[in-house]
Amino acid sequence: MLKLYIANKNYSSWSLRPWLLMSQAGIAFEEVMVPFDDLAPTSPFKQTLQPLAPTGQVPLLVDGDLVVWDTLAIAEYLAEKFPEKQLWPADARARARARSVCAEMHAGFSALRNHCPMNLEASMPEMGRVIWRDQAGVRANVARIVAMWQELLDTHGGPMLFGAFSVADAYYAPVCVRLANFALPVPPTIAAYIERVRALPAMQRWTEAALAEQRFVDFDEPYRAAP
Amino acid sequence: MLKLYIANKNYSSWSLRPWLLMSQAGIAFEEVMVPFDDLAPTSPFKQTLQPLAPTGQVPLLVDGDLVVWDTLAIAEYLAEKFPEKQLWPADARARARARSVCAEMHAGFSALRNHCPMNLEASMPEMGRVIWRDQAGVRANVARIVAMWQELLDTHGGPMLFGAFSVADAYYAPVCVRLANFALPVPPTIAAYIERVRALPAMQRWTEAALAEQRFVDFDEPYRAAP
Ligand SMILES: N[C@@H](CCC(=O)N[C@@H](CS)C(=O)NCC(=O)O)C(=O)O
Ligand SMILES: N[C@@H](CCC(=O)N[C@@H](CS)C(=O)NCC(=O)O)C(=O)O
Repeated sequence: MLKLYIANKNYSSWSLRPWLLMSQAGIAFEEVMVPFDDLAPTSPFKQTLQPLAPTGQVPLLVDGDLVVWDTLAIAEYLAEKFPEKQLWPADARARARARSVCAEMHAGFSALRNHCPMNLEASMPEMGRVIWRDQAGVRANVARIVAMWQELLDTHGGPMLFGAFSVADAYYAPVCVRLANFALPVPPTIAAYIERVRALPAMQRWTEAALAEQRFVDFDEPYRAAP
Repeated sequence: MLKLYIANKNYSSWSLRPWLLMSQAGIAFEEVMVPFDDLAPTSPFKQTLQPLAPTGQVPLLVDGDLVVWDTLAIAEYLAEKFPEKQLWPADARARARARSVCAEMHAGFSALRNHCPMNLEASMPEMGRVIWRDQAGVRANVARIVAMWQELLDTHGGPMLFGAFSVADAYYAPVCVRLANFALPVPPTIAAYIERVRALPAMQRWTEAALAEQRFVDFDEPYRAAP
């Protein structure tokens, strides 16, 4: 059975992507939760992950004695292993486009990622208004994301970015959470897409588990003090 | 004919990757050089690229009316379009590993990338010694890269990371340039791999063209003033 190592569901945006991809696509796997700690070399987090993969990060996919690390490599591995799941769009042109937007996410949108960390249990609309006012980088990132989604929804007709659910939706799911929880302003068609992603059955299961965690992680909480 | 948009060969590490991949694999393409300028929205650089792709960055691959952006998406597109070129390793496990190390490069090694920008015409061993002394992040990045390459060379027997030339070598080629030009300390087997990459025929052609450019780009020159 495939094993997916993840960290806290409330915070770990990279963990969410392959978890959602597999869960929503109906690929069976065993989940191994490694909670965030201080991430020092001697911490339980690093002591668990470093022997498995050189980055010592989540997500990690283990298939027998093969370890695949990094979200994008995991997505490609799953797409090859389960072709019938069509994790990438079937059309070659759409697939190229899907890979472009995922790679763009993989290395980009740093302002949004830094200023608006994923935090499922925290609704921070007021902080969102301050960020929106002060951070031109966040506004630019959101403008690009809105244009991307709008174009894809128009081209493929929805409900997901490439019609049916694909790697691209899993890749942008944490962005949906950020936009919603910081209440950043987006047009109604984009707000509707965000709601559709948040309503995916697998996304709801993840969210419920995240809310149940109740583990406050300082380094992912720039705007709140521990309760 | 495929068209690849790139920027200055002396500086543009992301451009080098798909250029080297296609050239070394013998995939025909037309090269379109868009020189770096101030990168303002109204600059020739952005005015050329922004209408083609939303990131307004290089590299860009144009295939008829399809535009593929981002290095990793371009690599996957080429691997699908030219299966006979075996751009990824043929073995599924090796391929998963190759994708993991490429994705790791795609989003990682920021200390090395920030402190040691690619600059083919500049040999800066003394600056390299200062960086090595002061920047723990650079030392950690290099340690990880050395361990990665050593393991892959041991596993696959060289001469390239996965035996034959693959996307992984193209992905790490700019790192080879950086390690060489800043003369960062690496073990002999790693130095030998770096020399093999620099000696690839396509890499030599790229290097010659880079040296002939003679276009000084301030934002890529943290350690030199314009001549
Ligand atoms: N590029 C990696 C990023 C993975 C990543 O940043 N994971 C975070 C959690 S969301 C992590 O493990 N952080 C702990 C650490 O860096 O020590 C991927 O796509 O998988
Ligand atoms: N993640 C992108 C990075 C591309 C990138 O950063 N390109 C640089 C040149 S090496 C660029 O176009 N810079 C100009 C700009 O950002 O405006 C990729 O892999 O293609």
